[in-house]
Amino acid sequence: MRVADYLANYISELGVHNVFMLSGTGSVHLDDAFAFQKDMKHICARHEAAAVHMAEAAAKLTGKIGVVIATTGPGGVNAISGVVEAWVDSTPVLVISGQVNTHQVSEGIRSFGVQGFNIIENVRNITKYAVQITDPYSIKLHLEKAIHEAYSGRPGPVWLDIPFDVQAAEININNLEGFTIESKPNLSSERKLNEAISLIRNSEKPLVIFGQGVRNSLAIKEFEIFLETYQIPAICSRMALDILPYDNSYFFGMGGMRGHKAPSILMREADTIVILGSSFTHAYAGDHYDFYNQDAKSIMVNIDNSEATKPGLRIDISLNMDIKEFLNASNNLSKNNDLKPSKWLQRCRYLHENLPSVDDSMAKNPINSYYFVECLNRVSKENHIFVNDAGSSNYICSQALKLKNGQREITSGAFYTMGIALPLAIGASLTEDTAQVIAITGDGSIELNIQELRTLSQNNLDVKLFIINNGGYASIRKSQDELVGGGRYTDDAEVLNFKNIAKAFELEFEILENYETLELDLEKILSTKSSVLIEVVCDFKQEIIEPFNIDYIK
Amino acid sequence: MRVADYLANYISELGVHNVFMLSGTGSVHLDDAFAFQKDMKHICARHEAAAVHMAEAAAKLTGKIGVVIATTGPGGVNAISGVVEAWVDSTPVLVISGQVNTHQVSEGIRSFGVQGFNIIENVRNITKYAVQITDPYSIKLHLEKAIHEAYSGRPGPVWLDIPFDVQAAEININNLEGFTIESKPNLSSERKLNEAISLIRNSEKPLVIFGQGVRNSLAIKEFEIFLETYQIPAICSRMALDILPYDNSYFFGMGGMRGHKAPSILMREADTIVILGSSFTHAYAGDHYDFYNQDAKSIMVNIDNSEATKPGLRIDISLNMDIKEFLNASNNLSKNNDLKPSKWLQRCRYLHENLPSVDDSMAKNPINSYYFVECLNRVSKENHIFVNDAGSSNYICSQALKLKNGQREITSGAFYTMGIALPLAIGASLTEDTAQVIAITGDGSIELNIQELRTLSQNNLDVKLFIINNGGYASIRKSQDELVGGGRYTDDAEVLNFKNIAKAFELEFEILENYETLELDLEKILSTKSSVLIEVVCDFKQEIIEPFNIDYIK
Repeated sequence: MRVADYLANYISELGVHNVFMLSGTGSVHLDDAFAFQKDMKHICARHEAAAVHMAEAAAKLTGKIGVVIATTGPGGVNAISGVVEAWVDSTPVLVISGQVNTHQVSEGIRSFGVQGFNIIENVRNITKYAVQITDPYSIKLHLEKAIHEAYSGRPGPVWLDIPFDVQAAEININNLEGFTIESKPNLSSERKLNEAISLIRNSEKPLVIFGQGVRNSLAIKEFEIFLETYQIPAICSRMALDILPYDNSYFFGMGGMRGHKAPSILMREADTIVILGSSFTHAYAGDHYDFYNQDAKSIMVNIDNSEATKPGLRIDISLNMDIKEFLNASNNLSKNNDLKPSKWLQRCRYLHENLPSVDDSMAKNPINSYYFVECLNRVSKENHIFVNDAGSSNYICSQALKLKNGQREITSGAFYTMGIALPLAIGASLTEDTAQVIAITGDGSIELNIQELRTLSQNNLDVKLFIINNGGYASIRKSQDELVGGGRYTDDAEVLNFKNIAKAFELEFEILENYETLELDLEKILSTKSSVLIEVVCDFKQEIIEPFNIDYIK
Repeated sequence: MRVADYLANYISELGVHNVFMLSGTGSVHLDDAFAFQKDMKHICARHEAAAVHMAEAAAKLTGKIGVVIATTGPGGVNAISGVVEAWVDSTPVLVISGQVNTHQVSEGIRSFGVQGFNIIENVRNITKYAVQITDPYSIKLHLEKAIHEAYSGRPGPVWLDIPFDVQAAEININNLEGFTIESKPNLSSERKLNEAISLIRNSEKPLVIFGQGVRNSLAIKEFEIFLETYQIPAICSRMALDILPYDNSYFFGMGGMRGHKAPSILMREADTIVILGSSFTHAYAGDHYDFYNQDAKSIMVNIDNSEATKPGLRIDISLNMDIKEFLNASNNLSKNNDLKPSKWLQRCRYLHENLPSVDDSMAKNPINSYYFVECLNRVSKENHIFVNDAGSSNYICSQALKLKNGQREITSGAFYTMGIALPLAIGASLTEDTAQVIAITGDGSIELNIQELRTLSQNNLDVKLFIINNGGYASIRKSQDELVGGGRYTDDAEVLNFKNIAKAFELEFEILENYETLELDLEKILSTKSSVLIEVVCDFKQEIIEPFNIDYIK
């Protein structure tokens, strides 16, 4: 069996049935092995970064590693944009790259062989494990180690670079050595854990801020029990919008600069904040970590200790441990509690109900994009997968989506990578092929991976791709107005003619311009099974809600 | 004056008048300063990698540094693909990236602030100088150092990462300190130089293999004198095809796996090879450096010593020095020589004349792509700039173009980066706005930067973009036939409908399908000033010439 076949077989047996790739001569054995592997579908992307985004979507939906094959040189290098995204957003993705023959690989030289490049030394900082395979018999060891690293601790991407001769090398799979996982000791002490629990219990106004770490540690159920047990209100960060349904009675939406309105007040009122599996960035907590009550006590539970030790951030109790372990321990300690909803919880519910993002005044033409997203949300079903892009469409979705039980939402949470929605949507649709994907992107963002429109139509996926046309880079114009004075815009890129774009890439096309028929139009669009590109002509002067600028409610 | 304005002003005074960018909030002061700088045009690309390719074209044409502005996080990360290309192809490009505010920058953490990312530690291996500016008053020092590094020795990309507050910082430019260049000693000894000259003189069959180092050291004139003085035949590598006109009587085309036919024989017959400013890769010299006479003596002159010390490559005399210095010294030593064309030179000329790439048998339908390129070449004028892509269109151009005096050719020489032709063409046209650009790409390659078609049409550039339609990734299918057995193709990506693509991106469209009218059709197309996309339907089974497989001629 070729090393390449061993890899394809192993990955297939993990239960990963989609591999995303762009064929190349330097990866020819890898391409061939994965393409002709039983129970494996290979999807040809048209740019390697997009292939990684597709694999990210698969990983985010299934919890299993996403797999990408790239060729040597520019192929692997193109994948880097996607890998950085997976790195900052903690997604387990495995990139397997082709390389020139082993004897041509050289250190300390710009390139070698045909398109040879030292990719490993250039991805070491953005992966959890990255190695070039020089001995065919080491394949099992490195593969198992890479997969283990991708999942363990804070998840992230890993990379195996496989020279041409090694891909093709015949191996006897009975002679392969595997990787033995060493169990890691619990990183935080019981004393600190008890201190944290005691602080939460004794707070009048505790507030949980949770991130995708809750999902990554497979602890959503335990988290729901925790909130109920402690009767504690919770707000989420960008990647955790779909962990609890919007109507969960302990959940009050997303916090931060581009979050919901109520959380901006809750953050200023809480006397203890408990940050669970969230990186609690400046975008969330303020430029100087000053968006929340500066007298509040803070607890952070994170498997990645570097998040708690960021310069300028004051954490009173830092628990460097798995979220699930923390929740189980907390839930056990308070099993017999019989807490009643406090005044604080009632206050949270009051603010939440009285500070909606979308209201009736938005029902007008030109279409308000908040109104559009809310309407789309309303007609969506429980098995819909939402996919969002960067820029203003991301902010609008953060603030207007009210996700239902069972719905997922996939986007770029830490990096706001422009153009990510289209490849994410393709990856999501291929992964959950019975679900319909609702993707929302912007007229600027769509351009960065526009080549994948043809991958979408060619695979005839049930993806509805909504493009919010607000006249170009709206969020950048807004920054320029605020930061360098009005009217000094640098961006002269004209918005595309999306009708012609749809035709060119062989997609059905719809245009939505009227709020009055919007709900009916959307129902009709969602009732089909085909790939459709829908241009939503919105108000070019749409303002983004700034929750920290709203009038404070006593 | 803001630091950003100081930068824009300095770059403008260097004589660089185009800056390639994609606006972002994290780079808002940079974007603003460059966009509103006198004598500076800002070109908004639609992907940062493409912006770098555009800047590469500018640098390759003018010899001056190409300049790119990217925003923080995904912006800078997207630029990496372009920077690697500039690194392997030795092109002086400066990327200036935005970054979050200084107080938010953290080490050892995946991301910080809004879209913050430690870009510098991720580009250090692929740049000659990369630094984050933390003190506004260090801007002149780092800028001058970066620019010096970009040009000095083997050229390459450099990177300045500038936090938001530093971009905006007001500085008194009288208080800035600059960078003083320390002169470096000559790296090679006079003894070795004399040995090399003596070896060349005493060889019966010397052969020069020259690369773009000749152009980079501004030594084309000295090189022509050298060839005449020593009556020595020369063949080039991929990036040097436009250094001598095809009709120079000492120049016999390109060598290597995808080169012309005659050089493949000359390499096997030469008794001394003199490699000047070329990296002499495996693609050129053979998988085991065995494409040339193994008894030949070898001399390498290269400013980058790592090229001479590659594992497996035997160099008898390695001169680690500037090409111009070498040529001047050699020319001085042999000033009074009166050599006559040798039998060896006559042999070179005989083979060159009798082994053309294109012959009359190719004049038929479907269009042979060699015939097409030769025809295009024939109708081209002396101020035409050719731009080529990767894949089979690159090979066909290498083998069929016969560049005229004054013509330039720009392509990806070391990396064969797919999709590079379109952004290179845009960069070239903006840089030399009185010249017409003839770009040749493939139906696969065009997809990787297809978003830039709108940048082309919006700027209304005089670029004729020819897409060779050979039914998809032809060069990959060929590899698969050879390497994994016939018929196991992994690539199912269907070729685009280019007529609709042209319409979508607002370009004129032409289709060429008949060899008989080809020359007239091409003349007509080149007679206009507008941006045109031309689909050339070629033989889907076109074979690439393999010069080392041709019958040897005694």
